[in-house]
Amino acid sequence: MSSTRWVQESLVVQTPGKGFTNVTPQVVNLVAAAKVRLGQCVLLVRHTSASLLIQENADPAVLRDLERWMSELAPEHRRWEHDDEGPDDMPAHARSALTRTNETIPIVDGRLALGTWQGIYLWEHRTSPHRREIIVLVSGTD
Amino acid sequence: MSSTRWVQESLVVQTPGKGFTNVTPQVVNLVAAAKVRLGQCVLLVRHTSASLLIQENADPAVLRDLERWMSELAPEHRRWEHDDEGPDDMPAHARSALTRTNETIPIVDGRLALGTWQGIYLWEHRTSPHRREIIVLVSGTD
Amino acid sequence: MSSTRWVQESLVVQTPGKGFTNVTPQVVNLVAAAKVRLGQCVLLVRHTSASLLIQENADPAVLRDLERWMSELAPEHRRWEHDDEGPDDMPAHARSALTRTNETIPIVDGRLALGTWQGIYLWEHRTSPHRREIIVLVSGTD
Repeated sequence: MSSTRWVQESLVVQTPGKGFTNVTPQVVNLVAAAKVRLGQCVLLVRHTSASLLIQENADPAVLRDLERWMSELAPEHRRWEHDDEGPDDMPAHARSALTRTNETIPIVDGRLALGTWQGIYLWEHRTSPHRREIIVLVSGTD
Repeated sequence: MSSTRWVQESLVVQTPGKGFTNVTPQVVNLVAAAKVRLGQCVLLVRHTSASLLIQENADPAVLRDLERWMSELAPEHRRWEHDDEGPDDMPAHARSALTRTNETIPIVDGRLALGTWQGIYLWEHRTSPHRREIIVLVSGTD
Repeated sequence: MSSTRWVQESLVVQTPGKGFTNVTPQVVNLVAAAKVRLGQCVLLVRHTSASLLIQENADPAVLRDLERWMSELAPEHRRWEHDDEGPDDMPAHARSALTRTNETIPIVDGRLALGTWQGIYLWEHRTSPHRREIIVLVSGTD
């Protein structure tokens, strides 16, 4: 049994407003640099109006459909009590509640064990561009 | 490379019925006691009619809005087949399916790496008060 | 402080189309074989049209209700832009976005620390049967 390595990094993402940013390449690079053969990668987005999602990385229409459909599940035109940060803020919290704030992905043979069609996305829920921070924690063994 | 510490505790929460209980202070204390500098904290709620959520800790209207909106996504007045534990039970399972049963939060410099506006909440989905148990597992290195 | 063990396995599940497959027995067996006393089990489903869910394991009507209700939250009859893989494909991605791709469950005294009424389910979102793979990663100490 060899010992366990713990490595922590941060990812900063500048979003263009509502929609998806693929952060898979950056996470792949951080995992490779951590030199862990068998272990896991934990991601935490440090915000409550943006979220993380593992979704299909092939057809961009999937992401456009998710965006439109989610805009109806948590609509801006609803009468929200919390409205002093703009009409898109409370829907953003609601969208965050339905999706994920953290994801944990196993690392096998030194690589994220994602399926072929899976990508890691930051989902921005606010209308205007934002600077978002994701904590990345890699742990595992050689 | 130093060795990895594993510490497990339980949190018992007495809920007042539907709504949010902020458990951040208790989790912060358990993490501090575990004396882990770099690692992670895993939370698991041991129930399927209550859930965990990381959400905004500033304006309480956000939590009231989430409660009202979720009551419409998973309404009591729907004709549910599973109805022998009361009209609020099946909606509670549905609300649990949309939110989270477990959360994993990195620990950096001995502290939960949550964002400034993030709190950890137990979300009770049943109408009457319940006793809920959360397993807390801290792992990491000095 | 003893050292940490990391064990990785795969679970292959043949689904019958839309609905739930209880994978708890297989996960319990993998955890027992890993001989970890205190630690955690991470599950990742390697697909974006199926998901993982921890839900009630007692009344099967709960799972039937969840299936019917989810079919309305993410309906096939909606006009989705992504429609070239069949009318059930885009709803499957939407259902996956609302539920979970990974779950992390603490291991205490050598056993998954699930509540009495909790089971681990693979939720198939496609209409036709599929072969689904779940990565299982167990880590912890003696």
